Amino acid sequence: MPPPTATLSVPSSTSPSLFPLSSFSSSNNPHVSSFCPAPTTLPKFPSLFKPKTPLRNLTPLSAVSIEKETLISERPHTFLREADGGDDGSVRSRFQRMILEAQESVCAALEAIDGAGKFKEDAWTRPGGGGGISRVLQDGAVFEKAGVNISVVYGVMPPEAYRAAKAAADDQKPGPVPFFAAGISSVLHPKNPFAPTLHFNYRYFETDAPKDAPGAPRQWWFGGGTDLTPAYIFEEDVKHFHSIQKKACDKFDPSFYPRFKKWCDDYFYIKHRGERRGLGGIFFDDLNNYDQEMLLSFATECANSVVPAYIPIIEKRKDTPFNESQKAWQQLRRGRYVEFNLVYDRGTTFGLKTGGRIESILVSLPLSARWEYDHKPEEGSEEWKLLDACINPKEWI
Amino acid sequence: MPPPTATLSVPSSTSPSLFPLSSFSSSNNPHVSSFCPAPTTLPKFPSLFKPKTPLRNLTPLSAVSIEKETLISERPHTFLREADGGDDGSVRSRFQRMILEAQESVCAALEAIDGAGKFKEDAWTRPGGGGGISRVLQDGAVFEKAGVNISVVYGVMPPEAYRAAKAAADDQKPGPVPFFAAGISSVLHPKNPFAPTLHFNYRYFETDAPKDAPGAPRQWWFGGGTDLTPAYIFEEDVKHFHSIQKKACDKFDPSFYPRFKKWCDDYFYIKHRGERRGLGGIFFDDLNNYDQEMLLSFATECANSVVPAYIPIIEKRKDTPFNESQKAWQQLRRGRYVEFNLVYDRGTTFGLKTGGRIESILVSLPLSARWEYDHKPEEGSEEWKLLDACINPKEWI
Repeated sequence: MPPPTATLSVPSSTSPSLFPLSSFSSSNNPHVSSFCPAPTTLPKFPSLFKPKTPLRNLTPLSAVSIEKETLISERPHTFLREADGGDDGSVRSRFQRMILEAQESVCAALEAIDGAGKFKEDAWTRPGGGGGISRVLQDGAVFEKAGVNISVVYGVMPPEAYRAAKAAADDQKPGPVPFFAAGISSVLHPKNPFAPTLHFNYRYFETDAPKDAPGAPRQWWFGGGTDLTPAYIFEEDVKHFHSIQKKACDKFDPSFYPRFKKWCDDYFYIKHRGERRGLGGIFFDDLNNYDQEMLLSFATECANSVVPAYIPIIEKRKDTPFNESQKAWQQLRRGRYVEFNLVYDRGTTFGLKTGGRIESILVSLPLSARWEYDHKPEEGSEEWKLLDACINPKEWI
Repeated sequence: MPPPTATLSVPSSTSPSLFPLSSFSSSNNPHVSSFCPAPTTLPKFPSLFKPKTPLRNLTPLSAVSIEKETLISERPHTFLREADGGDDGSVRSRFQRMILEAQESVCAALEAIDGAGKFKEDAWTRPGGGGGISRVLQDGAVFEKAGVNISVVYGVMPPEAYRAAKAAADDQKPGPVPFFAAGISSVLHPKNPFAPTLHFNYRYFETDAPKDAPGAPRQWWFGGGTDLTPAYIFEEDVKHFHSIQKKACDKFDPSFYPRFKKWCDDYFYIKHRGERRGLGGIFFDDLNNYDQEMLLSFATECANSVVPAYIPIIEKRKDTPFNESQKAWQQLRRGRYVEFNLVYDRGTTFGLKTGGRIESILVSLPLSARWEYDHKPEEGSEEWKLLDACINPKEWI
C-alpha cells in the first residue's frame, strides 16, 4: 500500500507551488484582480486533511511544504500579531474588527430567522500568525447550509509575483514581499426553492515593503461584493436587493453601483454555459484609487447592508409552498453554483490549489445539487425566465 | 440588457483561445500526457449553448471563434472524411469502428440489466468534418444516469503546441498541424449506494505532417482506462474488477497492469482532499512506444472488458437494501466525483475551457451530489474503510 507520493500525476493546471504565479499575475482585463486573496482559504499554511478520525498514512505530499492550522477551543480576541502592532487602530486592525462584528451580526440574524438551526463554530490559528473562524449552520429549519467565515492571513509573496502584480521596473529586484490579507466570506443556501441563495465577501489586502528593499512602497487594496442567486425571480425581491446595494454604493460614489453591478455580472459568469450564476449585485476588486478611510467605510457599509438586503426576502419566501419539480429546478441551479465555484471562482480555485482549509473553502457548496442531461426549461415558464435573466443580465433598478 | 460581451471578466485560468497551449505542453511527469484529447468534447468546433428552447441573445462570445455542431436526426455510418480515406482499413477507421461497436454493446448490456431505462441518442456533425453520438439513460430502474459517448474530431494544432508536444528543434518551424482524435467515454452512476460507479474512456490521436513541412513525421498515440468508484467496499467486487483489467493487460504485456494500475491511482487524485476519487483500475496515456496494431488490439480488449468487469457487480448489488444514511454517504462520494471532474479531470476541464458540447462533457456528473460541512466517518465504519482505501490505494490482486 504505497503512500501518496510526490510523483502523483495531477493535472498540470494544478500548481504544486503554494504560490502559483498565475494567481498573482496581472490580467489584461482591467476588471480582473491581479491577486484575489481567498478570505477563508489561508493560502500560506494549508492542511490537506484535518483528521478528527485518524486515518493511516495521512502524511501530506512531501513536495508541498505546508504548515498546519491548529484548531483552538475558544475564538481569540484578535488574530493580529503583537509584532505588527496588534490592535493599534491601523486599517488592518479596524478591518479585522469590522469582519468580526459582521460575522456576529449576520449569524445572529440568520439564527433568529431560522428559528431552529444554530451555528457551529471552528476557530483555528496558524503557527506563523493569523487564523480564522468558520461558522456553519447546517440543516436548519430555513437554511440547508449557511457558512459565515472570517480569516486573517499572513504570508510572503514571491518577488516575481510582487513584480507582476505591481509592475515594478525589471531592474528592481525586491526580495520576498510580506503580505496581510483579511476577509469575511459567506454563502447562505436556504431550503425553500423560492428563497434565494446569497453570497457576500469583503476583503482587505496589504503588502509590506519588500524585506531587502525597505524603501519600496507598501500597497493595499480592498475587494468584495454581495450577490443574489435565486432559482425563481420575484421582481420585487431582486429590486429590493439591488436597491440596498445601490444605496450603500451611492453614499460613497455615484459611479460605484453601475460599475460594480456590471463587474458582478461579468465576474459570476459561467463561461461554458453562457450564463451568469445568478442575478448579480455588486463586485469589486483591487480597489485602491480612493481614500483608504473612505474605502474602509465603504466595505463596512456593504457588510452592514447584508442583513437589510437579504433577511426581508427570506422572511417573505421561506414558507412558500413548493412542489417537487420546483425543488428539482432549485437543485439544478445549485449544480450551476457548484460549476461556477469549482471551475471559475478565484477564491475557491486558488484555495484548492494552494491547500487552504478545505472545509472552509468548500462550505460555499450547497448541501445538494443536481445535473440532468440536456435539461431545457419550457419557453415562457418561470424557470425559463430565470435562465433568460442569467443569460441576459438586466438592470433591476 | 447588454448581451454577453467579449470583455467578460472571466478568470485568467480560462483561456479565451480554443487551443490553450498549456493543454498541449509537456509535463515534467512522465505519466502526464502532453495532450489529452477529450473524447466527447470536440475541442475544435464548440457551441456554448444548444438552444432547443430559443432564448434571446444567444450569440456566443465574439472573442471566441466557434463552429457550431449540427444535430442530425440519424446516426451516420461514419464520421471519417472521404478526403482522408474514409473507411479504408486505416487505424483511425478501425478505431472508429471499435468505439461504435463498444458503444452498441455496452449500451445493450446496460439496458438489459436496467430493465426499464432506455438510452436517448443525440448525434451531431461538425461542418469541418467529424461529429459524435451521445447516448444517455437517465432515471432508469438501476441507473440514475448513464452516459456512453463517442466522438471523432478533426482539428488543427498550433505550431507552438506541436513543437512543445513533440520537442521539435527550435529552428524547425512547422505550420499548423492537422490532428485527428477519436474516443469513447462513459460514466455510469447506479442508484443503489452499494452498486459502484464506473468510468471508462479509450481514445486514439493522430497528427498529420505539418502543412508546410510535409517531410515531418506523423504522430499517433493511444490513451484510456477503466476505473471503479464505489461508495462501499465489497472486496470480492473490487478483486473481480481488477482481475478483469489485469487479464486484459496481461494478454499484451505483463508490465501493463502494474504500471497502468498505479497510473490510475495517481491520475484520479483529488489533491485538495488527499484522496483518490475511487478504487482505481487502469489508466494510460500517450502510449505509442509499442506496435500500433498491438495497441489497437489492446484498446479493443480493454473496451470489450467493460461489460464482464462491471455487469456482474451490478447484478449482485443493484437490489441490496439500503437506508437513508447509506444513500447520503453515496451522495457525499458523488460530491467528490464532481470535485474531481470539475477541478482536475483534463478531459472535462479542457472541454469546458475550449467550448466543447457542454451536455456531452457534463453527462459525467452524477444526477445528484452532496456536500456536508466537515463530514468525517466514524473510525472503523464501512464509510471509513472506503475513505481509507481512497487515501491509501491498495493492491487488490
